[in-house]
Amino acid sequence: MAEVDHPSLVKFASRLKDGRALAEDVWSIYNVANLPADCINLGQGYMNFAPPEWVKKAAEEALDTVAANHYSHPKGRMRLRQAIKKVYDPQLHRDLDVEKEILVTSGANEGQYSVFTAFLEQGDEVIMFEPFFDQYLASVTFNGGVPIYVPLHPPANASGKFSSDEWKINPEELRAAITPRTKMIIVNTPHNPVGKVFTRAELEIIAHIAKEHNLLVMADEVYDTLVFDGKEHVRIATLPGMWDRTVTVGSAGKSFAATGWRVGWLIGPEYIIRPTLAASTRIVFCSNSPLQEAAAAGLEQVQERKFFQTQTAEYAERRNILTDCFDTLGLPYTNPEGSYFILLDISRVKFPDDYPFPRSVLGRGRDFKACWFIALEVGVSSIPVSEFYCLEHANIGEVYARFSFCKDVDTLRHASERLKKLKQYIV
Amino acid sequence: MAEVDHPSLVKFASRLKDGRALAEDVWSIYNVANLPADCINLGQGYMNFAPPEWVKKAAEEALDTVAANHYSHPKGRMRLRQAIKKVYDPQLHRDLDVEKEILVTSGANEGQYSVFTAFLEQGDEVIMFEPFFDQYLASVTFNGGVPIYVPLHPPANASGKFSSDEWKINPEELRAAITPRTKMIIVNTPHNPVGKVFTRAELEIIAHIAKEHNLLVMADEVYDTLVFDGKEHVRIATLPGMWDRTVTVGSAGKSFAATGWRVGWLIGPEYIIRPTLAASTRIVFCSNSPLQEAAAAGLEQVQERKFFQTQTAEYAERRNILTDCFDTLGLPYTNPEGSYFILLDISRVKFPDDYPFPRSVLGRGRDFKACWFIALEVGVSSIPVSEFYCLEHANIGEVYARFSFCKDVDTLRHASERLKKLKQYIV
Repeated sequence: MAEVDHPSLVKFASRLKDGRALAEDVWSIYNVANLPADCINLGQGYMNFAPPEWVKKAAEEALDTVAANHYSHPKGRMRLRQAIKKVYDPQLHRDLDVEKEILVTSGANEGQYSVFTAFLEQGDEVIMFEPFFDQYLASVTFNGGVPIYVPLHPPANASGKFSSDEWKINPEELRAAITPRTKMIIVNTPHNPVGKVFTRAELEIIAHIAKEHNLLVMADEVYDTLVFDGKEHVRIATLPGMWDRTVTVGSAGKSFAATGWRVGWLIGPEYIIRPTLAASTRIVFCSNSPLQEAAAAGLEQVQERKFFQTQTAEYAERRNILTDCFDTLGLPYTNPEGSYFILLDISRVKFPDDYPFPRSVLGRGRDFKACWFIALEVGVSSIPVSEFYCLEHANIGEVYARFSFCKDVDTLRHASERLKKLKQYIV
Repeated sequence: MAEVDHPSLVKFASRLKDGRALAEDVWSIYNVANLPADCINLGQGYMNFAPPEWVKKAAEEALDTVAANHYSHPKGRMRLRQAIKKVYDPQLHRDLDVEKEILVTSGANEGQYSVFTAFLEQGDEVIMFEPFFDQYLASVTFNGGVPIYVPLHPPANASGKFSSDEWKINPEELRAAITPRTKMIIVNTPHNPVGKVFTRAELEIIAHIAKEHNLLVMADEVYDTLVFDGKEHVRIATLPGMWDRTVTVGSAGKSFAATGWRVGWLIGPEYIIRPTLAASTRIVFCSNSPLQEAAAAGLEQVQERKFFQTQTAEYAERRNILTDCFDTLGLPYTNPEGSYFILLDISRVKFPDDYPFPRSVLGRGRDFKACWFIALEVGVSSIPVSEFYCLEHANIGEVYARFSFCKDVDTLRHASERLKKLKQYIV
């Protein structure tokens, strides 16, 4: 990174040399700004529709007060903490203490970062399942932690549609990854980018290992409202003995189609929440107030409005538009039980070796080239999945491109028509 | 902190043991929740009035779009970066590059934290002038840095009103604080809590030392729109050779009476902004989108509306209500040239030793007791200033209570009437 390092001036910190922090990230490479103007963006996971009117209305009401334009308590606004309690109490089978067991954060991302700040010592190891949400990596290394990778394995020899449930962890690989320095396991369910919703049996294995080795579990459940086909979403915090060592992560952005509101939350026992509050208080002081009020109004009303049920049905319809297309193409892909991503096996999509690829994708996995080729030739962007693996395991990821279906039905139909043109490149 | 440390479970990180991170902070002790319901809150520095209607309107317009409810670029929304450029270009005498030299952050606080993450190695020293904004302390130590304190000295033997300009640094003390591990100097001007606006001559001394020792300067100028009495606010980044080593910090919350919007910004050379962007991208990913749009609308229109001129006149009027009161009381106090704080010398305010103080203020400086006594006996809360000093220098601070005048005129008049009752306790 010589070009950003002014030779005569002050050097940036060595922590930025780890965790790909200064590399051109996948989101920048496949940014709309780098792609043809008419390319349909199924890359980054944000919606092309707005939050519900009744949630936005609460934001506008908040703006019309005095207090909701000023600092919130670093724990979060009481109304939002109460609304979180209302939703989570029955799901966690607890009577959550809004003063000690709930923390509002500036997006789930900052919440997770604050947990790492609060708990990681230099050299502490954090286990993450591959493919992993790429923010985990630098969030761990910036706080002195060491990421340890345990792969999720796709089924061997899949020829068409297969369920995200067929991606499996190998418990022996998980056990083998544990060392005396292991501090935490990140369990992302529903999973980005696989769409896997971990089963109770799988979570019990992870829970058993966490208890045996006295580990924290970060349960990243930001897609918890997006679970399809009647699949049960089990919260690992509800398994026996797990409340005491689990911090559960939620997101208003994912729940209410408002990824730019930056309102998330953490739920856990006081001994986890209090140091994390101390970290978050210094990192951001507090989260923005008007959109906390909106998120509160959202959570207060979801039950009465059956909002999450309706929204899930809408997302299932969106998913099916893409899966129908992939069925037509005859390419293997993961049918997700949760989240809003589909992994398409692009190993049979052929492109010329001398295609004019930009420098940013050369020297990366085959999937980087395939995604670029698909974006330019058929006009639909996606994200190469090797980015979600460590270098050693990148070969598992480079078979796949990630397509997001958090887009309106017309956009997905349009994208689907274009993607059918991939047929001519399939061998 | 034994009570939050679950004996059988995972320990929080040792970084939380530094920087008072888990101590009960001064904001919690003097929180409205702990004080009588009718106590007038001149403690924490947030306004009891709303942002301007035309700025709020832009937030509402943003909420009515799709894009401004979703992720912004981690650098910040282009409209806001352009608006920042419009305001700062003439002040910094530069043609700022909105791609490389401006970074929007989740409040100035997160921006400063990200600079520390981007630049501090374990053991790097950061010089801060006392009294210091208390967030600096943990923000530095969480990132492995070591705070080094250089006191601002109040005038000896002040008997009544004296200008914030009379608080002085001793250049020899600053020089003596430099070591081979010094990485950065924080210069907060206008200064919280002193109200001092550093003069050009003072900044030249600091700049000279920074250049001589190849140091970064963090210019925390979040109160830059609140400078009174025609005083010149000099940006240290404009001094010869200083652009290359200075990051300037600004805040929409302070500029537009919207402390709960959490929109701030950093301006500096690419070699500072790029690593800081890398840090901020992992810490929060991006800042909330609707209120970035509102801040942009605000900055776009300030010149035409002469908004900052009007606002400054309003704050000067607010300040004068309190200073008139303190004149009547005959107590020494700092008349601030900037920011919205007044330091009142409370050493002649007497209170009974056996007053029923809560446990949280016992064992702290005399100012903690005095502020508590004043809040309960006359009904106006303030903040004890020893909190803004290291333990070694706390005796300088415990002479003062900080009163905020970012409140409407009626509230300040009411507070002023109450504060006159202090007369009976003055010896």
